Amino acid sequence: MFAASQKTLEVPIVTSETTSTATETVFTVEATPVKFGAGAAADAGWELRRLGVTRAFVVVDPEVRARGVAAPILECMRAAGVELIEYHDVDTEPSIHAFERAVQAARDAGVDGFVAIGGGSAIDTAKVANLVSTHGGEIMDYVNPPVGKGVKPPGALRPLLAIPTTPGSGSEATTVAILDIPELKIKTGISHRYMRPSQAIVDPELTRTAPGAVIAAAGLDVVCHAAESFLSRPYTSRPRPASPDERPPYQGSNPVADLWSGQALRYGGQYLRRAVASEDDVEARGFMMLSATMAGVGFGSAGVHIPHSCAYPIAGLKHSYRHPGYPGEKMFVPHGFSVIVTAPASFRFTFDAAPERHLMAASFLTGETYVPDDREALPNALLSLMKDVGAPSGVAELGYDESDIPALIEGALKQQRLLAVAPKTPTEADLDRILRDSMYNW
Amino acid sequence: MFAASQKTLEVPIVTSETTSTATETVFTVEATPVKFGAGAAADAGWELRRLGVTRAFVVVDPEVRARGVAAPILECMRAAGVELIEYHDVDTEPSIHAFERAVQAARDAGVDGFVAIGGGSAIDTAKVANLVSTHGGEIMDYVNPPVGKGVKPPGALRPLLAIPTTPGSGSEATTVAILDIPELKIKTGISHRYMRPSQAIVDPELTRTAPGAVIAAAGLDVVCHAAESFLSRPYTSRPRPASPDERPPYQGSNPVADLWSGQALRYGGQYLRRAVASEDDVEARGFMMLSATMAGVGFGSAGVHIPHSCAYPIAGLKHSYRHPGYPGEKMFVPHGFSVIVTAPASFRFTFDAAPERHLMAASFLTGETYVPDDREALPNALLSLMKDVGAPSGVAELGYDESDIPALIEGALKQQRLLAVAPKTPTEADLDRILRDSMYNW
Ligand SMILES: [Fe+2]
Ligand SMILES: [Fe+2]
Repeated sequence: MFAASQKTLEVPIVTSETTSTATETVFTVEATPVKFGAGAAADAGWELRRLGVTRAFVVVDPEVRARGVAAPILECMRAAGVELIEYHDVDTEPSIHAFERAVQAARDAGVDGFVAIGGGSAIDTAKVANLVSTHGGEIMDYVNPPVGKGVKPPGALRPLLAIPTTPGSGSEATTVAILDIPELKIKTGISHRYMRPSQAIVDPELTRTAPGAVIAAAGLDVVCHAAESFLSRPYTSRPRPASPDERPPYQGSNPVADLWSGQALRYGGQYLRRAVASEDDVEARGFMMLSATMAGVGFGSAGVHIPHSCAYPIAGLKHSYRHPGYPGEKMFVPHGFSVIVTAPASFRFTFDAAPERHLMAASFLTGETYVPDDREALPNALLSLMKDVGAPSGVAELGYDESDIPALIEGALKQQRLLAVAPKTPTEADLDRILRDSMYNW
Repeated sequence: MFAASQKTLEVPIVTSETTSTATETVFTVEATPVKFGAGAAADAGWELRRLGVTRAFVVVDPEVRARGVAAPILECMRAAGVELIEYHDVDTEPSIHAFERAVQAARDAGVDGFVAIGGGSAIDTAKVANLVSTHGGEIMDYVNPPVGKGVKPPGALRPLLAIPTTPGSGSEATTVAILDIPELKIKTGISHRYMRPSQAIVDPELTRTAPGAVIAAAGLDVVCHAAESFLSRPYTSRPRPASPDERPPYQGSNPVADLWSGQALRYGGQYLRRAVASEDDVEARGFMMLSATMAGVGFGSAGVHIPHSCAYPIAGLKHSYRHPGYPGEKMFVPHGFSVIVTAPASFRFTFDAAPERHLMAASFLTGETYVPDDREALPNALLSLMKDVGAPSGVAELGYDESDIPALIEGALKQQRLLAVAPKTPTEADLDRILRDSMYNW
C-alpha cells in the first residue's frame, strides 16, 4: 500500500496566475464502473439485466473457454434470462480481418448488448463489434488517422460488460481497441470515450489455471502502462486546445492518473513475481488484476509512449517468436514482451526529463530509495522483474538483428499519437540508440 | 504526493481459499467522469451538447451567483445554444420542502437535462429535481428507509452536469442527496447509482472569492469523508449478500476507495490551511477541490460513519449557531463543522479496531510518523487543523449542553446505514462518551 510521507512531485495545478494562456490547464479522468472480487463473475447475469440487456453477443477467448473459465459465467447469464449469441473467433493480437468477421457476426446476431470474456483481444473485439454494428460504416472509418478516417461515433454504443480473465491490457477500463493491419504492416487503434465498457467485472478467481507465461507477459504490459503513464509529460506542457474537441485522449500525467499509475506500479513490484510463479496464487493474481485495471485508468488518461511505440513494429514486422510455456502454436510476440524489451533503454533515455519521477517509479516497484542521479534505478528494477518472470532478454531474442532497426524505427515513428506524450521526444537517432541498447538487455 | 515505501496495510483480496463462504468478497467502485482544471468551466456548454442537452434546468446557489461566479458559465452554455431555465431557490442544508419546490419547478420547466452550480446543496437539489421530475412520484418514495420507502428509480435519469464551487461535499462524485425533514427532526438521504452526475467540471478558479470560513467548513467535511472512509470496516467483514441487489451502497474500506481517501487526506493536510487563509490561493483551493472529489469517490464506495452520524442531529436539533465570517444571516451549523467536532473523540474510540490505519490516517494529514500505540495521533492531527482554520471548539459552542446528549444519541442511532460501516459499532454508552468528550475539544 501507499505510504504516508509526502514527498511532493505533484504535477502542478495551474491557475490564472501561474499559467501562460498558451498551455493546457485542464485534464479529464474517466473510469469504467468496476465490480471487483473473488466470485464477482457470478453477478454477470445480474449486471446484464441491470444494463437492460436481453440478448447479448458474447465474445469468448477460446483459450479461456478451453480452461473452463467461461462456462459458469455463461450459465449464470443464461440463468438470469439473457439470450446469448456466443462468438469464439478471437485472434491473439487481432487483425482488422478478425474484427471484420466479428462485426459481421454481431450484425447478423441482432443483439441489444455485448459481453467480453477474455484478455484484451476479446474485449477489443467486442468493443469494435459493438461500435460498427451499432453505428454502421466500415472499421477503417473509425480507425485513428492518418491510417483511418477517425470518424467519431455519433452516439453511445450498446452496453458492453467486460470480464477480463488475465491481468494485462486494462482494456476493461480504456476507450481503445488495438488492431493489426497486415497489409500495411502497422498496428493502430480506434479510440473514443463511447468505446469504454459500461461495466467491468474483475474476478481474481478467473485467473486460476492461466499459464505463468501468459501472466508474465500480461503483467509486464501492466507495469509498462503504469510506468509510461507515470512518466508521460505533464498535461500542463501541451498547448491549450482551441476547443475541447481537440483535447487528445492521451493527455499526459496529471494528479489523478498518477494516483492510479503509482499504485499499479506498487502492485506490480509486490505481486507479479508471485502471480507468475503459481497458477493458484489467486491473491497475487488478484492484486495484479487490480493493478491492470488501475493502470488502464491511468494510461487511459495520461497515455503510453516510447516502449509502446516500439512495441507495435516489434510485434508487427516478424512473427518468428514463440515464448516457452505460451499456449497455442502460433508464432508471435506477446504484447507485454514486445513492450517491456525496450522499456529499460527508453527510461534511460527519458531520465533527464524528470529524474525524480523516474526514481519514484523505481521506488514504487522495489520499495527502495535511490540517490538523485541514479539513472539506472528504474532500468534495473525492470530488468530484475523481467528476469524473474522469464521475459525474453531483448529485441534480438524476438527475431530481430541490427539490420532490422531502420524498419523498427520507421514503425515506431508512425505512433505519433503516443510519442506526443513522451517526456522527451525521441529523434530517429534516439530510437536507434534505444533499439540497439535493447537488443540484449542481459 | 504519495510516497514510494510500501508499508502494507492493504484490505485483503479474498479468494476461495482464504474466505469463509459467509463473508463478502466483492466491492464496487464507480466515479463520475471528471474534467478538472483552471478554466474548465468554460467547457460547460460543450459538455451539455455532448450530453445531448438542449434545454437545461440550472440550479445556481444564490451565494455563488452573488459572487459573480455563475454568470460566465451561464453565458458559455447559452453561447453553445442550450436554453437555460435558471433556478435560484437553493437552501443551505436543504429541507425536503426546498426539494419539493425544485421538483415542481423542474416539472414545469420541461427540460432534457440538469446543471448544478454551487456546493453540495445546489448539486443535491439538482439530483432530486432530476430524479422526481424524470420518474414521477413523491420525494418520500425515494428517501432511504425506514424514513422513506426507498423506491429504486426504474431507469437512468436525465443528464446532470455538476459544477462544484466549493471544495466540500463531493456531491459531484456521489450517488447521494442529503435532506432535512424538519417535521421529523431528522436528516436523511436518497441514494442510488442513477443519482450520480453524468459529468463533473471541477474548476479551481470558481473558488476564488469564496469566504475562508466556507472553505474551512467544507474542507473539514472533506477531511472527515476521507478519514471516515479510510477507517471504515473492511468490505470483507460484512456478511455476503444473498443477491447483488442487497449489497449496501456503503461497502466499507477497500483497496480502491483507500487510494482515493488516502490521497484526499494528504491534500487536506497539505493545502487546507492555505486554502482558508487566502481567497486568492487558487492553487491550494484547487488541490482542495481535487481532494473533495477524490474523497467523494472514496466515501461513495467505502462510506462514512460515526462523525457523520453524530453530525445529523447536531445540525438538525438546534439552529442557534452562527459562524463568524459565514455569509448570510441564517442561524445554522455548517455541515463540515457539525461533522468535525466529534471526529477526534470518534477516532479515539475506534482506535483499537485498527491502530495502524489510524496512525496512517494521521500520517497522511501531517507527514509525520508515530509510535504504534499513539492513540492521540489522529485526534491531535485533526485538532491542530481545526484550530488553524477557525473551527468551533466543540459541540458546546454549537449550542448544546450535556442535557442535550440523550437527544443527540437518539439522532445518531437513527443513522444505522452509516453506523454499519463503523470500524467498531458504538453502543449508546459509547456515543455518550464521544459526545461528552466532544463538548470542548480545547
Ligand atoms: Fe499495452
Ligand atoms: Fe459530509
